[in-house]
Amino acid sequence: MEHGAQTPAPHRVVIVGGGFGGLYAAQKLGRAPVVVTLVDQRNFHLFQPLLYQVATGGLSPADIASPLRAVLSGQKNTRVLQGEVVDFDLEGRRVLLQDGDLPYDTLIVAAGAASHYFGRPEWGESAPSLKTVEDALEIRRRVFSAFEAAEREIDPDARRAWLTFVVVGGGPTGVELAGALGELAHHTLKNDFRSFNPANARVLLLEGADRILPPYPEQSSAEAVEALERLGVEVRAGVKVTEIRGSEVTLQVGEEEEVLQARTVLWAAGMKASPLGEILARRAGAEVDRGGRVIVNEDLTLPGHPEVYVLGDLAHTRGEDGHSLPGVAPVAIQQGQFVAERIARRGSGKAPTRFRYHDKGSLAVIGRHAAVAAIGRLRLKGFLAWMVWMFVHILYLVEFDNQVLVLFQWAWSYFTKNRGARLITPSVPLELSTSERPVVEALGR
Amino acid sequence: MEHGAQTPAPHRVVIVGGGFGGLYAAQKLGRAPVVVTLVDQRNFHLFQPLLYQVATGGLSPADIASPLRAVLSGQKNTRVLQGEVVDFDLEGRRVLLQDGDLPYDTLIVAAGAASHYFGRPEWGESAPSLKTVEDALEIRRRVFSAFEAAEREIDPDARRAWLTFVVVGGGPTGVELAGALGELAHHTLKNDFRSFNPANARVLLLEGADRILPPYPEQSSAEAVEALERLGVEVRAGVKVTEIRGSEVTLQVGEEEEVLQARTVLWAAGMKASPLGEILARRAGAEVDRGGRVIVNEDLTLPGHPEVYVLGDLAHTRGEDGHSLPGVAPVAIQQGQFVAERIARRGSGKAPTRFRYHDKGSLAVIGRHAAVAAIGRLRLKGFLAWMVWMFVHILYLVEFDNQVLVLFQWAWSYFTKNRGARLITPSVPLELSTSERPVVEALGR
Repeated sequence: MEHGAQTPAPHRVVIVGGGFGGLYAAQKLGRAPVVVTLVDQRNFHLFQPLLYQVATGGLSPADIASPLRAVLSGQKNTRVLQGEVVDFDLEGRRVLLQDGDLPYDTLIVAAGAASHYFGRPEWGESAPSLKTVEDALEIRRRVFSAFEAAEREIDPDARRAWLTFVVVGGGPTGVELAGALGELAHHTLKNDFRSFNPANARVLLLEGADRILPPYPEQSSAEAVEALERLGVEVRAGVKVTEIRGSEVTLQVGEEEEVLQARTVLWAAGMKASPLGEILARRAGAEVDRGGRVIVNEDLTLPGHPEVYVLGDLAHTRGEDGHSLPGVAPVAIQQGQFVAERIARRGSGKAPTRFRYHDKGSLAVIGRHAAVAAIGRLRLKGFLAWMVWMFVHILYLVEFDNQVLVLFQWAWSYFTKNRGARLITPSVPLELSTSERPVVEALGR
Repeated sequence: MEHGAQTPAPHRVVIVGGGFGGLYAAQKLGRAPVVVTLVDQRNFHLFQPLLYQVATGGLSPADIASPLRAVLSGQKNTRVLQGEVVDFDLEGRRVLLQDGDLPYDTLIVAAGAASHYFGRPEWGESAPSLKTVEDALEIRRRVFSAFEAAEREIDPDARRAWLTFVVVGGGPTGVELAGALGELAHHTLKNDFRSFNPANARVLLLEGADRILPPYPEQSSAEAVEALERLGVEVRAGVKVTEIRGSEVTLQVGEEEEVLQARTVLWAAGMKASPLGEILARRAGAEVDRGGRVIVNEDLTLPGHPEVYVLGDLAHTRGEDGHSLPGVAPVAIQQGQFVAERIARRGSGKAPTRFRYHDKGSLAVIGRHAAVAAIGRLRLKGFLAWMVWMFVHILYLVEFDNQVLVLFQWAWSYFTKNRGARLITPSVPLELSTSERPVVEALGR
């Protein structure tokens, strides 16, 4: 429709997913001669490593989430769209949304991972996992509702079941969640109930492998067990969960079977790549691994499609040692930056050709002021490790706003041991297990 | 079962509702020779005057909510129960819960009020109101989803409807909500969109009476209109809403009928006392007013039942001037304290016999740093009124924790104009009104 000389159309980059990989790629493309569209189902970037704090009432969702628009509003070449990607037309170079098509010249798919119950999706009903804001609020609702129910329950066995919390999975998320629950029971809620002592609540951390934090050095695992036990958490490794139904968890311990009565069971055991990985691989004739991750080239491109990149939890890539890279934020961040650099320098002969991961170490936090860290050959534990953990995590919060607020909230709750965010929302009535219309025990009677 | 001399059973006070009235009564009874049980459906006290900040992404729910247990954990004579009260057995002196009975010697009913659509409950579907945390999150979801949808919408009329926000009701809640929306559109979201200018969003505030803030002095109303108009809000008084259906709002303006196309309609017009008011009145043979409030004696007791108190938004009481007292926090707080004093001094001959309200003035805030205040004969406006408003509101946040956090967040957002809490949760897909599978406009094309 324009008259005059035609200027070449700008190179269109579409990024699917506003997690660490997608967002860091978008930020690094801010000054490149391209136009960027970032599509996400949600309108915010979520700092998942702190989600367990939301689940246990220490932080609010907004403290660890940044509106994608706010983060990218200063980049004039970038547009954010909220939308659900359902498929890809690789020949036509279009991303197919639920309700529209989005054309691209270069595509970055960074759709991340979701919880996975190893072929037992029905366990999700009894044992919520911790991947989204909604998951965290559901866990928060269940945890604090369990304490509320215990306060009203007059049958001792039923009360015991309300006060038993089982965390399945001894990776960093499980360790952090169990530690926070132990701290809740032993510190935060200490004076809050009249019919039981919260310190008598039982928190169990179950791990199938022979030690918790299996990818960490053995020394870190042992230190984590020690720190957890100080918070009253029972750590049980080498234990396999064979059934979760209602408030019963069935374990296999060696040859023995054991049944736990627990009203609150939390799932921190499995992750699987977004279904978009399989869809993309099918369209390209590429392969996925057991975890649904797309097996990509050394430069993170989709086999046969040099214009399509896959990264983060959605991509299967290998480190220098030949092992596949873990699904953690630093991998996704470095991959996002690598891909952005390749795109910015495309055609210049200076684009990097092979992704190399720089491992900066592992960290897991236990309770209010203990953590374990393995940074290169350095091993830290206790308060020092906690300080490192806090510093690193705050550094990675995408917005400066959130960094300041979370630092302030933490400093505050560190001194007050408070968890003000322990709201039960939405309001769902508790179901008590005892007989009809019991007289609620009055205080002092 | 005990042997030895029987000690007299402690006097049991049951408080229904953890709002301002119930909570202040409970706190004042902390050192009285009674045992207190506070029952609420929710596990937190909510600072409703700031709920509009949650609805517009300025604060998180936890910033304006305090866990009732945390607030009362230091009072050894007090127990908190989460439960739903369904009826009262006044002869047997029992509160009937959904799933249990709770005996009392003295009862305080402070169950508050809920939104009310003047006989048109179906309007609630199209026009959510602002009374609970869930309400605020629903409004937040709708407001920010509307901007998201507008960014994707390619039909100009449909986009216009997404960018039209109607607030029904020009009381303090409506004024504050409309002011915050105006500020969002003109300041916070300024650089966030690529297909439209957020400053072109239309925010309308509709009031049926001939001026907004009808119970305030006329000068305050005029100043509020001025401040709202500076934020781009169209204030229309003397306008009656006759129908709300889907995204159409029908108005009656004098003899004329007018239809607005607005995807976001928010209800700030009506309140009605909790249904527990009518139930209680029926059991006692007492009367309720048009708003469902129980008409109580001068000492706030239920007629015929000197052992039952009704207060706050659930009670119809009159001020010195003969007008019924408004449903605001200061009335509930003073009534809670009055009742607690009567109970603590019961039988001593020193108990106060008649409730007197001390009116400390009215305040409403408009946007980021303007407000109107009428304190006795004093009239304030602009920044000074805003400072007073902020100071008073922070003072009334029940927990010191929240006071510090909210003050900090406000100071922060005051300087950064940011609203970090603008998360769309839960995730519900947007419905776009245009034709099927449109090509989403790519940036730079």
